[in-house]
Amino acid sequence: MLYFRNDYGAGAHPAVLEALCRTNGELTAGYGADRHCLAAAETIRELCRSPEAEVHFLVGGTQVNKTAIGAFLRPWEAAAAASAGHICVHEAGAIEQGGHKILPIPSRDGKLTPAMLRSNLGGPVTEHEVVPRLVYISNTSELGTVYTAAELSALREACDEQGLLLYCDGARLGSAMDAGGTDFADYARTCDAFTIGGTKNGLLFGEALVIVNPALRPGFRNCMKQQGAMLAKGRLLGVQFEAVLRDGLYLELAAHANRLARRLAAGLAARGVPLLVPAESNQVFPILPDAAVDALRESAAFEAERKLDGGRTCVRFVTAWHTADADVDALLELL
Amino acid sequence: MLYFRNDYGAGAHPAVLEALCRTNGELTAGYGADRHCLAAAETIRELCRSPEAEVHFLVGGTQVNKTAIGAFLRPWEAAAAASAGHICVHEAGAIEQGGHKILPIPSRDGKLTPAMLRSNLGGPVTEHEVVPRLVYISNTSELGTVYTAAELSALREACDEQGLLLYCDGARLGSAMDAGGTDFADYARTCDAFTIGGTKNGLLFGEALVIVNPALRPGFRNCMKQQGAMLAKGRLLGVQFEAVLRDGLYLELAAHANRLARRLAAGLAARGVPLLVPAESNQVFPILPDAAVDALRESAAFEAERKLDGGRTCVRFVTAWHTADADVDALLELL
Amino acid sequence: MLYFRNDYGAGAHPAVLEALCRTNGELTAGYGADRHCLAAAETIRELCRSPEAEVHFLVGGTQVNKTAIGAFLRPWEAAAAASAGHICVHEAGAIEQGGHKILPIPSRDGKLTPAMLRSNLGGPVTEHEVVPRLVYISNTSELGTVYTAAELSALREACDEQGLLLYCDGARLGSAMDAGGTDFADYARTCDAFTIGGTKNGLLFGEALVIVNPALRPGFRNCMKQQGAMLAKGRLLGVQFEAVLRDGLYLELAAHANRLARRLAAGLAARGVPLLVPAESNQVFPILPDAAVDALRESAAFEAERKLDGGRTCVRFVTAWHTADADVDALLELL
Amino acid sequence: MLYFRNDYGAGAHPAVLEALCRTNGELTAGYGADRHCLAAAETIRELCRSPEAEVHFLVGGTQVNKTAIGAFLRPWEAAAAASAGHICVHEAGAIEQGGHKILPIPSRDGKLTPAMLRSNLGGPVTEHEVVPRLVYISNTSELGTVYTAAELSALREACDEQGLLLYCDGARLGSAMDAGGTDFADYARTCDAFTIGGTKNGLLFGEALVIVNPALRPGFRNCMKQQGAMLAKGRLLGVQFEAVLRDGLYLELAAHANRLARRLAAGLAARGVPLLVPAESNQVFPILPDAAVDALRESAAFEAERKLDGGRTCVRFVTAWHTADADVDALLELL
Repeated sequence: MLYFRNDYGAGAHPAVLEALCRTNGELTAGYGADRHCLAAAETIRELCRSPEAEVHFLVGGTQVNKTAIGAFLRPWEAAAAASAGHICVHEAGAIEQGGHKILPIPSRDGKLTPAMLRSNLGGPVTEHEVVPRLVYISNTSELGTVYTAAELSALREACDEQGLLLYCDGARLGSAMDAGGTDFADYARTCDAFTIGGTKNGLLFGEALVIVNPALRPGFRNCMKQQGAMLAKGRLLGVQFEAVLRDGLYLELAAHANRLARRLAAGLAARGVPLLVPAESNQVFPILPDAAVDALRESAAFEAERKLDGGRTCVRFVTAWHTADADVDALLELL
Repeated sequence: MLYFRNDYGAGAHPAVLEALCRTNGELTAGYGADRHCLAAAETIRELCRSPEAEVHFLVGGTQVNKTAIGAFLRPWEAAAAASAGHICVHEAGAIEQGGHKILPIPSRDGKLTPAMLRSNLGGPVTEHEVVPRLVYISNTSELGTVYTAAELSALREACDEQGLLLYCDGARLGSAMDAGGTDFADYARTCDAFTIGGTKNGLLFGEALVIVNPALRPGFRNCMKQQGAMLAKGRLLGVQFEAVLRDGLYLELAAHANRLARRLAAGLAARGVPLLVPAESNQVFPILPDAAVDALRESAAFEAERKLDGGRTCVRFVTAWHTADADVDALLELL
Repeated sequence: MLYFRNDYGAGAHPAVLEALCRTNGELTAGYGADRHCLAAAETIRELCRSPEAEVHFLVGGTQVNKTAIGAFLRPWEAAAAASAGHICVHEAGAIEQGGHKILPIPSRDGKLTPAMLRSNLGGPVTEHEVVPRLVYISNTSELGTVYTAAELSALREACDEQGLLLYCDGARLGSAMDAGGTDFADYARTCDAFTIGGTKNGLLFGEALVIVNPALRPGFRNCMKQQGAMLAKGRLLGVQFEAVLRDGLYLELAAHANRLARRLAAGLAARGVPLLVPAESNQVFPILPDAAVDALRESAAFEAERKLDGGRTCVRFVTAWHTADADVDALLELL
Repeated sequence: MLYFRNDYGAGAHPAVLEALCRTNGELTAGYGADRHCLAAAETIRELCRSPEAEVHFLVGGTQVNKTAIGAFLRPWEAAAAASAGHICVHEAGAIEQGGHKILPIPSRDGKLTPAMLRSNLGGPVTEHEVVPRLVYISNTSELGTVYTAAELSALREACDEQGLLLYCDGARLGSAMDAGGTDFADYARTCDAFTIGGTKNGLLFGEALVIVNPALRPGFRNCMKQQGAMLAKGRLLGVQFEAVLRDGLYLELAAHANRLARRLAAGLAARGVPLLVPAESNQVFPILPDAAVDALRESAAFEAERKLDGGRTCVRFVTAWHTADADVDALLELL
């Protein structure tokens, strides 16, 4: 069975697993106060060229979004996000459970623009409404689209104009950096806080949260504990991030996945298969006849994104660090 | 440095690590819908002799307490717990953040009794007060004390009389079973829900939640997601629990830790060191002169439980699956 | 200054004020356990032909929506509402503060239809999403449109098909009943719970919540207290509802307001002023040139609903029990 | 039936009712943006000698406590209160529903002292615990005891030392000022925020919240709306507070109630009836034989505070602005 279901179907990259095994016998302090977490945090600050940034390590993506947004906002404040945003749709109401409304902004490609912020959030707010305060973007977006450095800068500027915080969910940040030509420092420069996703790029689990804006730091560790988001053997997170960040492996893995997605997209184009949005990173959204989708299920694992009219379905193929060229070629053969 | 700080200072038991490495390359469904989680859940149902029980795998202890109690209670209902209970003190207000008051019940040894439930929770409740609904116990307790099967049965009976749910936090359930002579089925028989702690007994991380009461099951997976408590690579939890539960390793590791704690307690008794409470499981609470505590810190890692009068401090020594007899002897030498 | 700003600008209808003065010296139990509340609740049950319905008296509209929806839903469940719904827009995130996502359903006229429920809420829900559980409608809607008895029955049927609760925010229920030809029993027959709004129809304040569905009753009084929604001198609510419900005054006042709105709409039509939506109840939404709006502000109090293109603005004129025919004529003169 | 059940059993003082009737026909802006609220707020600022203080008018005591504490605290912060505090016991978990733990401080007389703050809140706090941030006092306390100006100053100093906010629930502030010799300015000088209770001192309903600390002001109106705590016909609150504050009526009514409580306490002393705590304000807590309590219920309305051993019960007699000397004498006769 060919595997294009998602980028978290396998375990860890061998280098990550090796690091976990090598350090397994160490006896350290818990909850992230160990030398591995300290070192990984320092590496991240260096990569971000942001020596004052605060770095926290959490286990999962919904967890870090919920904990961060809940800690950053006051009760009367709301987050805004593209209507396809992960927090809008696929986190089972986690942000609302924490007390905050999400203002969805219509977006065809899953990305936000300064113009969208101005038209959707720019008006006067009465005391009968929530106050927009934080803009959530995901890079890569849920549709695989990618922000460039210039686009991030423009969003930063729009946020500054409107007194908004900019938060980037980087569950696929490696893929976004490879595809969009950005580096860690671009996020530290433009975002108040952002995450570096490990789960979908070679770790067993783990998201690093980088808090650049000093005003957002107080109480964060208490919030983590309160949300059940402080891992007892916290060093497991530090060890894994060390393994991928120190020598550039993080970007290598993402580049590999992106390259295979481009190979897949090229093959689909050659076969005349239309895409929902252009394939920019490691998620590809071809539109196929329903019959073809059904047939394909026998040989390949993937998800249906949405049913379209005319007997067609948009499906999602995801490539990952462990996807092989041969897998892509075999998938194209099947189509 | 001798290590008696806690039972989550090391990584995983070799058998657990081996299982993780062996299955690392598998490509499975995410979020716990994989064959390892299914098999581990089935094993747990068998051990519990509770074929209908629902089993969920979560990452950490605060996370499972917060998710379960939040899912089980209605907004106007409260949890009751011994005043030293983990949810009362050491979870940074996680239960209250979820909207529920905790009614603390004074208890010298960290355990609850039917009499305590009757005197603290038995009176009429006006509509200006919260309604006690769930009794939280931890076994072993935060003071290392242990419930017997008869005590669990008596609590069940008291809960039935008063219309209360019984929830057992089994972060150290292996130690409790070894020390108290209980087995998994005793918990399935007496509790509405309970956890089987992995983090403190040989796993990298992981708590299994067993929901016995069918009324508590609806919506639980959605609640997990909403709380950021659904691990993407969920199979890591199934693989680890399989590794320790299938062949009895879970109890072996706990028995080892308990045996070393008894060895330590015997040595302390021989040296005339008083204990805060009798040492029943893998946590020992000796009372030492402050000067001795300070001196000990140079050679051993441990935590101070509380400052006492008369220049004395109660400290906590915790043994674990990786503690060696020689460690205990060396610690006793130092005293 | 002509007053068309809203229907809560004056105090109470004289009959209500007289009842408050007449009973002022009584010494009664607090929190709604007095004979006036009991009698008003009984009157409501009779009007609803629903002898088992539970009736609670709360102070305000946002308060009753927040308390009821928070009490009715489990943590993983969501409310659905027309995108213009009061809970979506004008309650400052009250429902989300209570932990629940609102699923907005696009609607041009502020009303929901069975087809909308089926297309927006009918699909399968994964455990990564919230579970739609309660349908919120407002009658009259925020745009003054009105449900007929047949429309309510159709919604009830659609809700039953999909396992949904139907909740009607009746802040302007009197106006809705007069305009739509419904009576109290139509709501008791079709809704799981609904409110009878007093604030906007002659009371100083007060909303009666009728809980028809027995499954929604447990714990409600505790929830009221927990939300700060239990009035100490609760009888003030009973006294006021008695005053308007016993002899049909409630409907008379609403009919008066509706009649004046029709008079206003007829006058606007005669002058060729277009409306945003047809005027069905006591809110009228004419579309005027911006210059006319500015000029009008000097002589009349009203609210701008929204800015339109082409230099036009949609404004809102609201009539009330205290509006006079002469007020309407004077307003029409000004246009 | 003699009425000593509470101080909110009657309607409003005639002067308050007269003001409501007199202004009933006015057509004003809603939600507290009317001239009566503005004037009442200005009067309060003058009485407090605090020209910058922000004043909000809410309907009830639990509502104002929940809204204020929820707005003032960050998610990881907790309130501390005497264990008998209203927020601890009689608000159905309102503060916890808003996400915050309450740290109860044992107190025999319902009051807090600097020493209690130091011993209960002074220790180091780990990130696994909530951070104490706000000290809740009630004046008068739930046991009728009263703070002097010197005691308030001492609490302020202790709070400053520990970085704590001081919040005073003044549901019975008039009684506290009369009994303790304090004035409004004493609260503005020592508290970060406090309430001026109207419900229990002659109003139909209403609590004024005075926010002295500028850091606590942002977003408060949005929080009020979000909590359903913004009265549509907000002027009703302004009108009532104007009526009692402008000419000293507020203190007169409280002084009357206190005088009758002293008369009652003197009579009880003459009869050798012991009190639970000394009678300082308008609540008196005599300890009576159970049989006497039962007999008394036939002729008087009052509440049992708690069952004591030895066949005795502590009951609560409350005097109010409408209690007559003859009522007190008749009650004493019955004993």
